[in-house]
Amino acid sequence: MRILLDVMSGDRPPHELVEGGVRAGRRQRVDILFAGDPDIITSALAAAKMKTGSQFDILPCQQVIGMEDAPVRAVREKHDSSMVRGLLSLRDSEVDAFVSSGNTGAVVAGSIFNLGRIAGIPRPGLMVALPTLSGRDTLVIDIGANSDCQADHLLHFALMGATYARDVMRISHPQIGLLNIGTESGKGNRLASEAHHLLESANLPFAGNVEAHHLITDRPVDVVVCDGFVGNVFLKATEGGIAAVTTIMRRRIHRHALAKLGALFLSKTFGTIRKTLSYQRRGGAPLLGVNGSVVIAHGRSDAMAIESAIDVARREVEAGLVERFAHGLSGWSSDGS
Amino acid sequence: MRILLDVMSGDRPPHELVEGGVRAGRRQRVDILFAGDPDIITSALAAAKMKTGSQFDILPCQQVIGMEDAPVRAVREKHDSSMVRGLLSLRDSEVDAFVSSGNTGAVVAGSIFNLGRIAGIPRPGLMVALPTLSGRDTLVIDIGANSDCQADHLLHFALMGATYARDVMRISHPQIGLLNIGTESGKGNRLASEAHHLLESANLPFAGNVEAHHLITDRPVDVVVCDGFVGNVFLKATEGGIAAVTTIMRRRIHRHALAKLGALFLSKTFGTIRKTLSYQRRGGAPLLGVNGSVVIAHGRSDAMAIESAIDVARREVEAGLVERFAHGLSGWSSDGS
Repeated sequence: MRILLDVMSGDRPPHELVEGGVRAGRRQRVDILFAGDPDIITSALAAAKMKTGSQFDILPCQQVIGMEDAPVRAVREKHDSSMVRGLLSLRDSEVDAFVSSGNTGAVVAGSIFNLGRIAGIPRPGLMVALPTLSGRDTLVIDIGANSDCQADHLLHFALMGATYARDVMRISHPQIGLLNIGTESGKGNRLASEAHHLLESANLPFAGNVEAHHLITDRPVDVVVCDGFVGNVFLKATEGGIAAVTTIMRRRIHRHALAKLGALFLSKTFGTIRKTLSYQRRGGAPLLGVNGSVVIAHGRSDAMAIESAIDVARREVEAGLVERFAHGLSGWSSDGS
Repeated sequence: MRILLDVMSGDRPPHELVEGGVRAGRRQRVDILFAGDPDIITSALAAAKMKTGSQFDILPCQQVIGMEDAPVRAVREKHDSSMVRGLLSLRDSEVDAFVSSGNTGAVVAGSIFNLGRIAGIPRPGLMVALPTLSGRDTLVIDIGANSDCQADHLLHFALMGATYARDVMRISHPQIGLLNIGTESGKGNRLASEAHHLLESANLPFAGNVEAHHLITDRPVDVVVCDGFVGNVFLKATEGGIAAVTTIMRRRIHRHALAKLGALFLSKTFGTIRKTLSYQRRGGAPLLGVNGSVVIAHGRSDAMAIESAIDVARREVEAGLVERFAHGLSGWSSDGS
């Protein structure tokens, strides 16, 4: 298996991303094609005591799509960017998957333009595996690929999420929930009410509405569907709540003698919190519904996070997810669960 | 000043809510009219060594609107409920404000039916004062009174929120932000994009988009406006993030000897976190835009939270907010800041 890694578009320096690719190559037995400035990549490989060859190769490109670039315009104009060249390389089957920690909107737009949507799926959805207190992740889709979803889009997110849960995460009977502002079926806005109706009528293990404060603490379902704007706010608000508590803790450590006594305890606890809750450090978000395995890692991804994102891409390819989606999703629960 | 307290509709027993009303009466020098079962209220007053009289009086009612009641139907049918009787008492100027920890949807629907909207304000908005790490609250409106907002609604939330910030919270130049999924002006869904345009063109100190993860940690603005569905998800997701971290901490205390050493430190820290971040314990949410001062406390409100919700109502009445809104909001920044 060969995975393309865009090393130019993230917030962190390219050599860190190359390092993540090298680690993944060694541990996961995958080949990596690095897209970006060949000089930077060559020297980063040398620093890791690696050379180009069959396992690690370079797709040289001169342009970079930045975080501030307007997505649609950037992917239309920057033909020699690591992102566009990488996606074309996936389209042309030179690689099996594409991983980038770049501008999310640009990866989404670039994937739609260059790979196209899978027939029958109206909109691709960006999915995250959110860590929960149970120790098991819950899948949330869409977290920002689409900002004005219709009920039919949410239904397809549910079908894709359930298939992913079953085939990639090996959850035999995945339960689907709809993110809403109350548990009763009549709750929510127009979209939630229409989507609830569609999900109930579909051939799916739909468990009803779930509320935002229960997702991490109680993990009521395996897959949660929502509009991309709402999903993005949900994810960032959760992050803000976690950051607020850990910031208060850190401030107290610095200010109080008593707190310093607990420092060893605390450093372990912080480690646990990071490990348990930090979705940024744990892989990337698969963009489901386009013709190819695309994984978007957090912009701040370091080598460890990139290694993890490559793992997400590898597992998706091994499960043959794109082919499954292309064969149709409508008979989901009858042919699978 | 006389404030009506609905003691029947919350999650906690009525006598606890009566106790909150008595405390508020003593400390804030307000009169309280308790709406509910007269026997329960009389015995709760006796337990607090109080009798009915000019400061504490009873509005006897026999019905209760529960948390599971369908809001619109409940306020239309339960004429002798503490909620409906209380709102009518506000409409008839027998009291200056109404406080309830009951079914949010029912208080909103009951307020619109019985008090009416203020002319010129298309939708009332439910606002919360969200604690932040800076030690100062940030106001978020709407957190769930409306589920399918239009840009014009968000503009009015901004006008009301800014007026509240200036006249009740005494912030002389309040800054307004729009909750969005990116800081650039073109970001977000259709509503966010249209609202951004309207807010920019309005006579308001508009600071642009703000993202969910920055609200608590950085407090970028004084007032944040959003659609009620999104605001509700935002609030609950923040709550979930906070709960997740504190749960991990508590688990470690129980499991690890080292953690027990830090118990004293931790109990103080937990206190700080609760005080700093727990919006449930700190007052209620004013429903802005209806003809009367209505404050909705969290369903789980205990005596302390009720005392705090009454304080929110008292300050709103002292600021003459409803009269200000009724005089028109369009010239906000020219006549005020």
